[in-house]
Amino acid sequence: MSVLSAPLERLCQRVPGALAASIMGLDGLPVDTHTASKGDIDLSSLLVEYSSTLAQVRESAQMFAAGALEEISIRAENLTTIIRPITTEYFLALALLPEANFGKGRYHLRMTAPELVDELS
Amino acid sequence: MSVLSAPLERLCQRVPGALAASIMGLDGLPVDTHTASKGDIDLSSLLVEYSSTLAQVRESAQMFAAGALEEISIRAENLTTIIRPITTEYFLALALLPEANFGKGRYHLRMTAPELVDELS
Repeated sequence: MSVLSAPLERLCQRVPGALAASIMGLDGLPVDTHTASKGDIDLSSLLVEYSSTLAQVRESAQMFAAGALEEISIRAENLTTIIRPITTEYFLALALLPEANFGKGRYHLRMTAPELVDELS
Repeated sequence: MSVLSAPLERLCQRVPGALAASIMGLDGLPVDTHTASKGDIDLSSLLVEYSSTLAQVRESAQMFAAGALEEISIRAENLTTIIRPITTEYFLALALLPEANFGKGRYHLRMTAPELVDELS
């Protein structure tokens, strides 16, 4: 197991209802993904699509004095996704079932991101 | 006061730390905005920028079976923004101080959106 995939697996284990955790580049290229549960949703493709908005949102926030982007969460009918920048180049995404504990997901995402900084810097 | 601005003002009053509430078209054009507190952030321009990502995220979610978009929240260093579609054409956005009660903001946004459907349909 790679240095990156162990934290991703732990993240999924700590959040009941987690479907997948992924480290991605801001260009949308996945670096590593742990899939805890396969469903009908093509998570990899969806995260690539979502990631394209991340760079845009981050730029807008900085341009209009809202400051550094800390987190984006996207709730859709069948999936909740929480995305958090790790470095200027990479971000961490956690995909959850809609009924999963969102607060717990956010908390463990926030705790996991710093663990990955050294490996991605 | 217009039929639309009264619910926006009430929404801001119910959430301590609310800076502004806005109804916008998916094309980024603001329909009505209530500003509760003016700060350094150009909220109108920022919401226009954020709204351009909303259409994209909604399309991606539907395309990859995540289903209908229910909510996006964007946390930046100096501002938290929660966005919720009202109809297929319009959405409601609430801008909060970072220290505001996020859960309360989400709750009142969810309660306010249905009040606006009739006016915007």
